[in-house]
This record gives sequence, C-alpha cells and structure tokens, in this order.
Amino acid sequence: MSDLPRQVEIAEEGPREGFQIEKALIPSADKIALIDALSATGLKHIQVASFVSSKLVPGWADAEAVVAGFTPKPGIHYTGLWFNAAGLERALAFRDRLHLFGSISLAASEAFSLKNLNRDRAGQIEAMRKQTAAHIAAGVPVTRIGLQAAFGCNYAGDVAPAQVVAAVADGLAIAAEAGVTIQDLTLADTMGWANPHQIETVLGEVRSRWPELRLALHLHDTRGLGIANAMAGLRMGVARFDAAVGGLGGCPFAGQAGAPGNIATEELALLCAELGIETGIDLEALVEAGRLAERILDRRLPSAVLRGGTLARFRARAA
Amino acid sequence: MSDLPRQVEIAEEGPREGFQIEKALIPSADKIALIDALSATGLKHIQVASFVSSKLVPGWADAEAVVAGFTPKPGIHYTGLWFNAAGLERALAFRDRLHLFGSISLAASEAFSLKNLNRDRAGQIEAMRKQTAAHIAAGVPVTRIGLQAAFGCNYAGDVAPAQVVAAVADGLAIAAEAGVTIQDLTLADTMGWANPHQIETVLGEVRSRWPELRLALHLHDTRGLGIANAMAGLRMGVARFDAAVGGLGGCPFAGQAGAPGNIATEELALLCAELGIETGIDLEALVEAGRLAERILDRRLPSAVLRGGTLARFRARAA
Repeated sequence: MSDLPRQVEIAEEGPREGFQIEKALIPSADKIALIDALSATGLKHIQVASFVSSKLVPGWADAEAVVAGFTPKPGIHYTGLWFNAAGLERALAFRDRLHLFGSISLAASEAFSLKNLNRDRAGQIEAMRKQTAAHIAAGVPVTRIGLQAAFGCNYAGDVAPAQVVAAVADGLAIAAEAGVTIQDLTLADTMGWANPHQIETVLGEVRSRWPELRLALHLHDTRGLGIANAMAGLRMGVARFDAAVGGLGGCPFAGQAGAPGNIATEELALLCAELGIETGIDLEALVEAGRLAERILDRRLPSAVLRGGTLARFRARAA
Repeated sequence: MSDLPRQVEIAEEGPREGFQIEKALIPSADKIALIDALSATGLKHIQVASFVSSKLVPGWADAEAVVAGFTPKPGIHYTGLWFNAAGLERALAFRDRLHLFGSISLAASEAFSLKNLNRDRAGQIEAMRKQTAAHIAAGVPVTRIGLQAAFGCNYAGDVAPAQVVAAVADGLAIAAEAGVTIQDLTLADTMGWANPHQIETVLGEVRSRWPELRLALHLHDTRGLGIANAMAGLRMGVARFDAAVGGLGGCPFAGQAGAPGNIATEELALLCAELGIETGIDLEALVEAGRLAERILDRRLPSAVLRGGTLARFRARAA
C-alpha cells in the first residue's frame, strides 16, 4: 500500500450532478442550502451549477439564482459546468464567485459521443478546438482533459486501454495546437463499468506515457464496485476524485433507472480517514449535509454511511 | 494482482441471516421459494435456517418447516446455524438434507462477547469446549473457527491484530484439546469496521502464523467499504467469502438501524466475474433471486446490481 497518497482532494459534484436528473424541480433555496451546508464540511471544491440549456435540463434553469444566492466561503473553489459558448457566457458573469477553468471533454467511446453529443470523434475534436479557443479568448485557463466512458460504454461495450490512450492523445493535440498546457486528466467511469484491475491497468498505461499529468477519477457506483475502484486508484497514488454527497446523481443512461450515481463523498471520505489519508473533511458535517440532501429530495440516497454512521461515536464511547 | 485466486467459493447466507432480523414474520413458503431460487444460481453453499430459540428469534420459529420444505439440489451444501445443544439436536434431525459441521465461535472483542452472549472470554472458551464435545459426540465434524468482531467493535472500538491472533490461538487450543483439526478460519467484520489496509494487515498476521488455515471473510457493508474489503481479501488470495443475496441482513446493532447488512452476493459475484475469477454463479439468475427477495420483503435491498443490472446485456448488444 506504499503508493497511497498522504492527502486526497475530493471535488464535490452533488449539487450540480445530483439535481440535474431529478424529475421534480428542486427549489433554488434548497440547492443553496445544500451548497452552504457543504461549504461547512471542509470540502475545498464544490460544483454548484450547470449552465446548460433550460430546455434540455429544466432542473438547472435557475443556475444564475443559485450561483448568486449561496454564501461563498474563503478558500473554497466553487465551480460550474458548461458545454458551449452560451454556457460559458453565463458562467463568465460570475467570475467573482466561481473558479472558472476550461476542460477539453472527450469520450473514449465514439458510440457514447455519438449518442450523448451527436458528434463522432472528429466532430468532437473540432468542437473542443472551438471551445478551447473560446476559453482562451475569454481569459479562462484550459488546464484539464476530461475523458468520458474511459472504462466501458453501454453502447459500445468494453473500452480498451488503447482507446483511452488515443483519446488522451487527441486532447493533448488540441491543447498543443491552442498553446495551452494540460495539468490534469480526469478519467470518468461514466456508466459504471470499471473494476479494480482495470483501474490499475488503464492508469498504468496512461501514467507510463504521460507521467507529468495529475490523474483524477470520476467514478460511478452503478454496480457496487465504486469504492473498490476508488481504492484501486488510491493504491496507484491517485489523489483527486470527484464524488457526490449521499451518492446523489443516479444514472440517466438507458436501462439503468434508479441505479446508484456517483460514489458517495462520505464513503470515500470515510475510506480515506480509515486509511490515514487527509482530506480536510469533517465527516460528521458531511453526513449532516447528506441527510439534508435526503430531506430535500424526500427519499433515501444510496450512501451506506448515511445509514451506518461513522465510527467516531463508537470510538468515543469505547475510549 | 498476482495473488488473486482463480476460483472463489461464495457461501450464501441471505435466507438465514436476511430473514432473522425482519420484524414481520416471513411466510415459510417465501423462505422456501428463495432457497429454491438460489439453488438454481450455481451457488454451492447455502445457509437455509437458524436453529435458535423461537423466543429470541421469532423469525426462525419455522426452521423445521423450511428445511423440510425446500428442494435440495445435488452438489449443493445446505447448512444451518445453531448456538447450543438444543439447536444442534434440532439440526441433527435433518442429517439427510443438511451438510452439518461444527464451528468454534469466538469474538476478538471480549466486550462484544459479553454484550452479545453474556460471556467473558473464559466463559466463551468454556462454552466452546462443551459445544465441541457435543459435536464430536454427535459425529458432527468440527473443522472451522469463526471469529466475530475481528476488525472492530461497536462496544470496544478498534480491535488490534494481536487480539485476533490471541482469539485464533484460543480456538486452536480448544480444538487441540478435543483432538480435532481446524481447516478453516472465518474472520467476520460483524459490525462493519474494516478497511482494505486492515484486511491486509490482519490476514497477513494470521497467515504468517498459521499458513495451513484456509481463510474466509464474512464482511458487512455497513459503511460502504464491504466490496473494497472483499477486493483486499482477493488480493491476499482469499478464496472463500460469505455473502447475502441483495445485501440482505441489515445490521441489528445499536445505533445502526437500517444500515446495510452483509455484502451483496451479486456485487461480489460481479466483481469476481469482471476480474476473471470463477465462482460458478449465473449472475442473471442470482439477480432474479435478489429481485424475488425484494418482492418477499416488499422493499428495496441495498445491492447496487439489483438497480444497475449486470454488464452482460450491454456487452451482448454491443457485440
């Protein structure tokens, strides 16, 4: 276990990813309350809104109201998500409240890209060239490549490590052309296909080619392997993870209605705490934020820690 | 990952462990239906009943009816559970249907033993001496030590590897005195305290002392680390696991109402399948059995695979 990182940074995606798939519209005040609760947990990165078309994602029609409404806490990076020039414009209006950076977003599976974005590989590369230029023009740094479907795809089946390598190379070529330097690479198990052995194999292949890139994992717990996959990432020295409080997020993909979403932030934070890895997170406060999310949605979320609780009170009682 | 076993044996505990904690009495016919469904999944070990006092565990007052009622399938070991001479007597009536073997059951935490069994360490050793003698007298082989609370305890807090080693030594001394040979050691994370690093440490300590023992893990998913802990066991070459279909079992311990129970058999079986480890299990049939358990209990069980489904249909579609 010698490669375990000493510190791990968890980027909270619950507010953004969690609320976008809800059928009922969540009141802006509830979204703001959850963001403010998360700001009190020690998390340093919180994605607070999605600047997407309100026709496509009605749940984020209130992105502006939410971003204007939460109470920023010093030292926390609040981030947003956008997919096109219109979204970027909306985000730019909040330069004072949001930590803006651009990603080159690609998919390791062309079938996923076609299904999800209606673009083939070449089309997506072209779109990312334009988006990168738009970011540069707006003075927004482009420092990250995000790779969807890096471990498997509901439309294309298994994804080989070579496909991941090829897609990363595509992203780096876009960056080089634009004259920007990529620091971070996020590999996403968008549809919950990964297993721990595959995590090691794919990360190993990528790292041997590009040792300078900082790797992050965006994992889904669709089939219950999410935390085991995170553990495999930790063993490989990965120190950056996305997660969603309570396991918010669900899975919007065909045939998986009701499946668990992102790995639960509190499960990952508890794993790190038990392994002696610092996250800066107050686990009890995070559990409270998860319970708030459950009250807002009026249903149980997948996180086991919300049911089982942390170990702290048992340790305190036994001491 | 070189120590991964090529084959893994999963002992299904859903029917026994799952139904004992239900508040509503489950009809015997439903229990029998679940056992028969599990018999069609390829599982080779199924625990079908608990011969305990019907005053203490009303849910198993019908143990005889269930054991008499299911349809045994050749090649499957159907097992029962008992804690005293009266329970052993009841089990002995089903020698033709059940695979009977005795366990020396101890706890790595004396506080757990006191709370759960009202016996201190010496008292539990004495009880196991008597029970071992009773098994021998009845011609039931005693081949296993089962160690509760091997990774932590809600009453005593953390459990050190040295406590595990001491308790295993206690069990082996009981066996030696009685002239029986222990083959199997099951380490149970009874209250969901384990983490992957601890699994490696404890298994390493035990194995270095007693390399001849076959190790098994009984894991709970109380805080979402169950499958990551199973993965740590697999990495250490562990080839025997207990699990419960659907994640049946809940957690009866104080302050954890509603917490997930045993690791879900279908999550563990899917993990093994994705790693190329043989279990002999038909995952789709197992998922069907899990859905039957959900219909019987009229509620969702914790297993993510019951929501997310397996990967087979996506692979078939993509092929």
